[in-house]
Amino acid sequence: MNMAEKMLQLARDAKDAGRVMARLSSAVKNDLLEKMANALQAQAGTLIEANEKDLADAREKGMAPAMIDRLVLDEKRIGAMADGLREVAALPDPVGEITGMWRRPNGIQVGRMRIPLGVIGIIYESRPNVTADAAGLCLKSGNAVILRGGSEAIHSNTAIGGILREQLQKMSLPQAALQVVPVTDRAAVLELLKLEEEIDLIIPRGGEGLIRFVSENSRIPVIKHYKGVCHTFVDASADYDMAEKICVNAKVQRPGVCNAMETLLIHKDIAETFVPRIVATMRHHGVELRGCPLTRVFAPQIKEATEEDWGAEFLDLILAVRIVEDIDEAITHIQKYGSLHTEVIVTRDYENSQRFLREVNSSVIMVNASSRFSDGNQLGLGAEIGISTTKLHSFGPMGLEDLTTRKFIVLGDGQIRA
Amino acid sequence: MNMAEKMLQLARDAKDAGRVMARLSSAVKNDLLEKMANALQAQAGTLIEANEKDLADAREKGMAPAMIDRLVLDEKRIGAMADGLREVAALPDPVGEITGMWRRPNGIQVGRMRIPLGVIGIIYESRPNVTADAAGLCLKSGNAVILRGGSEAIHSNTAIGGILREQLQKMSLPQAALQVVPVTDRAAVLELLKLEEEIDLIIPRGGEGLIRFVSENSRIPVIKHYKGVCHTFVDASADYDMAEKICVNAKVQRPGVCNAMETLLIHKDIAETFVPRIVATMRHHGVELRGCPLTRVFAPQIKEATEEDWGAEFLDLILAVRIVEDIDEAITHIQKYGSLHTEVIVTRDYENSQRFLREVNSSVIMVNASSRFSDGNQLGLGAEIGISTTKLHSFGPMGLEDLTTRKFIVLGDGQIRA
Repeated sequence: MNMAEKMLQLARDAKDAGRVMARLSSAVKNDLLEKMANALQAQAGTLIEANEKDLADAREKGMAPAMIDRLVLDEKRIGAMADGLREVAALPDPVGEITGMWRRPNGIQVGRMRIPLGVIGIIYESRPNVTADAAGLCLKSGNAVILRGGSEAIHSNTAIGGILREQLQKMSLPQAALQVVPVTDRAAVLELLKLEEEIDLIIPRGGEGLIRFVSENSRIPVIKHYKGVCHTFVDASADYDMAEKICVNAKVQRPGVCNAMETLLIHKDIAETFVPRIVATMRHHGVELRGCPLTRVFAPQIKEATEEDWGAEFLDLILAVRIVEDIDEAITHIQKYGSLHTEVIVTRDYENSQRFLREVNSSVIMVNASSRFSDGNQLGLGAEIGISTTKLHSFGPMGLEDLTTRKFIVLGDGQIRA
Repeated sequence: MNMAEKMLQLARDAKDAGRVMARLSSAVKNDLLEKMANALQAQAGTLIEANEKDLADAREKGMAPAMIDRLVLDEKRIGAMADGLREVAALPDPVGEITGMWRRPNGIQVGRMRIPLGVIGIIYESRPNVTADAAGLCLKSGNAVILRGGSEAIHSNTAIGGILREQLQKMSLPQAALQVVPVTDRAAVLELLKLEEEIDLIIPRGGEGLIRFVSENSRIPVIKHYKGVCHTFVDASADYDMAEKICVNAKVQRPGVCNAMETLLIHKDIAETFVPRIVATMRHHGVELRGCPLTRVFAPQIKEATEEDWGAEFLDLILAVRIVEDIDEAITHIQKYGSLHTEVIVTRDYENSQRFLREVNSSVIMVNASSRFSDGNQLGLGAEIGISTTKLHSFGPMGLEDLTTRKFIVLGDGQIRA
């Protein structure tokens, strides 16, 4: 078989397996995930051995230490993968849920029932824990999953996949429900991306380059997870203490993630008092500030922001600061420079809170809370498979429910159309 | 400006206009749609005049009479377009609806609010009424819309668009919320399909060739409306009268549409009595039957079905008939040959009704009702923009709600992440 035929076979096997997975009871799926979790921990030695091969290759290629660290599997990280599977097992099963049911004048009852999507392809880079995390979410939601990790983690990913597939086999479930693509060249990905009859959804997880490559070459629907350029707008009526606490948390608690604040917008009426205060606090926390000209009137010691700083995802202890005329200018700035991820208003004004909630159409809009809550776990979805910054199907943090779709069900007693 | 620049400008204008439309109250949108409806009727003369040009071109090109008929605009059809807009005005507004709200242990409240998608592109063929229908649904759901109809209806579409845009202008709303692409060559479509930053969703409406062209060339999410190969499975326990009534309605009432039955599956235990009866009835209604070998044992007068007949969308008074061992074989047949559109079981058996509802994952599953109900109006969605046969975002008949997405909203009182 050539590459195209191999990928087609793999995808067809996944489609058949998906039909079996779609019919499983929650109890069977939960049992499967528990057994997978136990097996990962019981076979930690095998995993660490496989991981050593990836680490040796990485060192030989001179990979940066931070990248190598992301690749490492040890007892602790294997335990965390196993716990992740146990947490997903404990979540409610979305499949079969009936969301709404109504009666039509002719007596038919119409409802909508959640069903799995079918086959989900995950294309990812680096961290091998994605293999177990994504598998758990896809299988719990009744789907088959095709996992294609990066070449740098191929031994680790294959070993994790092997252990998880053993559990499928032991429960007499189709192993094709979970497949790790055994080759890592892009040709294989290109073949997979053509298979719109077999694969229902592609989720790329990784850098912008990977996401663009997948999005531009796929005939299958893609849910993209682009960058997070999160804004916090401190309104004229904000409580200073609350605003300061929220801003520090959003910028400093974990600056390298997509839900960290990148730009702070401050209402002009409070600039004279709030700017010097927040600048001092941020600098105390080691944050480099880059301000608009008016910000620098009140904090001359900081750098001037360039046009590139607006809309930049620093992922670091750097913050752009701009003073705005009013809530309208804040909203306009967010529309122009934002990435549709998460935006926050700090205010005591009822009307402005409502306007911000209604008029800013990013995926997560918050009043008086830190943008760091923009995460599937924190918002109460349980585990998350990613944060969608595109609006189709799913927008914002994606949980189990987002790996399903809904069919219509109709209960009649012989109705025909007139 | 070259074509690429023109399309980019048009899409950017749409994006800006979409932001204005997203904030409109339901009352303003309803008023707009009412005014549009009245204007179409008041200016029927202008429309008929423009339509005459399309008809003259069509006749000159020797277009088939059935195709010409689809193109015609007369007072009655203009009235129907206007009524369509009034019906959409009367539907509930999905924008701003909060679907679920919950409280997290730290006190933040998390909910999901419906918002417009932004900019929707509709690429369609032939019938000019799509221009008004699609515009009504997209505008009511707070979106901007880009309409690109076929060259055969360009004068009619431009005239309808002009009248509708006049009403936007009269209400001081941005005319760019509704744009009819003034050129009909495919190069313009190809340019539009690249604009993933500006356009949020593409819906192709037309033949399979158009849908494939759009799907294969688009970087923007596409919701596809492929063919309907609808099955009816008459179970062993079915009431014969009910089964006959449902089958006749599903096949005969309007054979040329996607929710008509194309294949009838009959449980082997009732074949001896039910096959001769349904064959006689169908032939009485002028239906040509094509049966499996076992069907022909009980109805030797009918043709033998070929492999191509299973899964065929006849759109005509032709029906494929197959006898199956049991519900499992019925489900397997549907999975192999179906198009994920609509499937019906006629049964009096509780367990089989539940199995069919749960295990068949087409977009609409019915018990004891005609497949002809698979339609947004009949199912109670109000108007429909199409019937999606792909699972992402929307599966089955699509109403106003499917032209929106949901953002998360978070109400806090100063919470930060620990």
